[in-house]
Amino acid sequence: MSAEIRALAVAAKSAARTMAATSNDERDAALEAVAAALDRACSEILAANREDLAAAQPRLERGGLTKATVDRLTLTPAKLAAMSEGVRAVARLPDPIGRVLERIELDNGLQLEKVSTPIGLLAAIFEARPDAITQISSLAIKSANGVILKPGSEVERTARAVVGAIRAALRGTAVPEAAVTNVQQRAEVDELLKLDDLIDLVIPRGGYELVRHVQSNTRIPVLGHSEGVCHIYVDAQASFGMALNIIDDAKTDYPAACNAVETVLVHRQIAGAFIPLLAKRMIERGVRLRGCSETVATLRDANVTAPVESVRDDEWHAEYGDLILAIRVVPDMTAAMEHIAKFGSAHTDAIVTGDQQAAERFLQQVDSAGVYHNASTRFADGYRYGFGAEVGISISRLHARGPVGLAGLTTYKYILRGAGQVARDYQGPQARPFAHARRSHSAGTGEGESS
Amino acid sequence: MSAEIRALAVAAKSAARTMAATSNDERDAALEAVAAALDRACSEILAANREDLAAAQPRLERGGLTKATVDRLTLTPAKLAAMSEGVRAVARLPDPIGRVLERIELDNGLQLEKVSTPIGLLAAIFEARPDAITQISSLAIKSANGVILKPGSEVERTARAVVGAIRAALRGTAVPEAAVTNVQQRAEVDELLKLDDLIDLVIPRGGYELVRHVQSNTRIPVLGHSEGVCHIYVDAQASFGMALNIIDDAKTDYPAACNAVETVLVHRQIAGAFIPLLAKRMIERGVRLRGCSETVATLRDANVTAPVESVRDDEWHAEYGDLILAIRVVPDMTAAMEHIAKFGSAHTDAIVTGDQQAAERFLQQVDSAGVYHNASTRFADGYRYGFGAEVGISISRLHARGPVGLAGLTTYKYILRGAGQVARDYQGPQARPFAHARRSHSAGTGEGESS
Repeated sequence: MSAEIRALAVAAKSAARTMAATSNDERDAALEAVAAALDRACSEILAANREDLAAAQPRLERGGLTKATVDRLTLTPAKLAAMSEGVRAVARLPDPIGRVLERIELDNGLQLEKVSTPIGLLAAIFEARPDAITQISSLAIKSANGVILKPGSEVERTARAVVGAIRAALRGTAVPEAAVTNVQQRAEVDELLKLDDLIDLVIPRGGYELVRHVQSNTRIPVLGHSEGVCHIYVDAQASFGMALNIIDDAKTDYPAACNAVETVLVHRQIAGAFIPLLAKRMIERGVRLRGCSETVATLRDANVTAPVESVRDDEWHAEYGDLILAIRVVPDMTAAMEHIAKFGSAHTDAIVTGDQQAAERFLQQVDSAGVYHNASTRFADGYRYGFGAEVGISISRLHARGPVGLAGLTTYKYILRGAGQVARDYQGPQARPFAHARRSHSAGTGEGESS
Repeated sequence: MSAEIRALAVAAKSAARTMAATSNDERDAALEAVAAALDRACSEILAANREDLAAAQPRLERGGLTKATVDRLTLTPAKLAAMSEGVRAVARLPDPIGRVLERIELDNGLQLEKVSTPIGLLAAIFEARPDAITQISSLAIKSANGVILKPGSEVERTARAVVGAIRAALRGTAVPEAAVTNVQQRAEVDELLKLDDLIDLVIPRGGYELVRHVQSNTRIPVLGHSEGVCHIYVDAQASFGMALNIIDDAKTDYPAACNAVETVLVHRQIAGAFIPLLAKRMIERGVRLRGCSETVATLRDANVTAPVESVRDDEWHAEYGDLILAIRVVPDMTAAMEHIAKFGSAHTDAIVTGDQQAAERFLQQVDSAGVYHNASTRFADGYRYGFGAEVGISISRLHARGPVGLAGLTTYKYILRGAGQVARDYQGPQARPFAHARRSHSAGTGEGESS
């Protein structure tokens, strides 16, 4: 097993090296070939997907799988068409490689350039979603990285069919087929984590336990995508209508998403007036309420008869991922920020207020990947940020934070072009001075300059 | 012990949070206070350093320490003055925090900004150099990060005196004294590595073994600074004079530096003419030669009588860090690039050639943090790149690559300012379109946009 996985990774790494020398046009042509192959393989892929669904059925009946998981893994001709269209959309994005991020003239005739490059070989461990397979593969090809995919086991047969179609399509292109490699067994993940001489970045998408397991068992850098415990703080100066609309969107638009809100923090000054309105709106939308003792008392005093479960102090960490909202009364904004620092996951946190000064203090001092004023937390998304596509939303602090698109799959190198200069001439009492004249070349992907 | 180290880290993390809310002016004032305190504490620091030197003496005599190590740990009034001047120079650098790296208008009245932020709490494990203590501390303060320092044990007393002066100076400033914390024992490093809930980045500077040990024993992201196995490839079209000057500088200017050259690769077409000239120059400069069998034969045929040791195939990985140069004949540039990929450490590699096309292919395809044409590898340095100061030279591929200055000690967050917008309005058949109008704001530190 171990030798087999290493052999796969060696082939994938070698493919990644070959890709580093391909042009953007060649990689785009490969993506077009992949999209066409997915269209052609439609019936085989759907047949494989039906087998996965049949295998999932008894687990669904026994309660071992949720309806939501089964929905996500179910392919339709329309979903498959959207997948191949997604691959074509990635091909249309600007080339993320070879971008001059910065240019510094060290001296006359001594030019330093910082240039974006592929990372190398990626390993992506993700949930049972067929569209994630094509999304991650196409982003990897576009950014000239090799990728080893480990999708959720429930989607095993579908993954084999989809990756089979992708690799067959790559055979006629400048991108080696080994650039996209699929592994199926959970045990193979642990083998992959040992290959720090071959794999340059592991991207675990899924629960907190998966991310911790990966972090604890590898020397490879990890880009973690896991929980989102997002907050909305409703300030004393908030417009109630705006706050209700934002919370409604952030809670009910897609409760399973990591950018959905879990906890609303309400300034004590408006708690008596606002919380009953919020409860009414949430109940209308089918949301179950949980609250601090003050919230419970406020609703009782306002004769709101909806059941409100009390939240224990150690429960504010919870990511419900469902139509459940926790409400807490706070004495002021400082207490709200302390709650967010203590219980949040530094994913996305928002303030609703008409007080510009309070808003600015919140935006500066809350240390989350996304900090919003008067907007729904649901905007935390690569498409909505304008990145074209996303690998996921990083809760790591380094390399890439928040929604990660193509630029998050690149790093950089420094290119220095000289005419025989030596360092010795620039030191000591007779030192030639450096010019250090800078010109910025930000290519405006919205994701910043990779690294 | 464990509880003590955790308590130190909790205090340092809390100091880091406080610093995140300080202004650049406040941090600069703190740095000025630190510089003045170092000047005032001159005699205590020199006395502590004399104790370290006395303790090192028997180890030097027994051969347990090299003369170079003792030289590096020796302080003089001039060196100490240079250290406090270095702190003032860091204060004069532009503010690395709060820089708007990118601005994207998602829609009218919905503005996304990507803004640089501190990383949080750093742990730096480094060699026995007094100047590294003030350099790392001042860069951490300037970038609003807390730092726990573990300097080499040979400099223990000096470190205690220097950090004592720094912390005493911070007491009167907006930067909490716990922002700079010193630990002394090697065992404490292993305790620090467990604190992934408090420490955001570990920076091990030193040998390969140290970096591997840190990577294997922590979930914290690691920014590795270790070996540099740098190459210079002398192409068939090289100017011999230029090649000799560049190799001379890269080998003899400071052989212990990680950006010194270890191996020269010579195109077979010029090997017979060039290698004897290179040998002559190196022998004049006191450099010992090692070589492949073809190099040895070439020198014998040319009647160069200098002793040349043969290099075994598995020895090309060696970082000599000394006046030793390995020479290998290669059939062409492709073979040179393969040698670099196989034996190099992806630190800094150079080509000397008059052939522009060959140079460009080398610059694009060699995947090292620095790739140079007609310039000495010794330019790989934060000061020479124009970053003002450096934490070290990263051989990690992610977050920061090559020389790392202030920007490498920052990360970023996304700030979104709205007027009540919800995500629901931007999806479905009646979706409002996004504008995604981009404006770039690269602040031109030369290090790119942090991570």
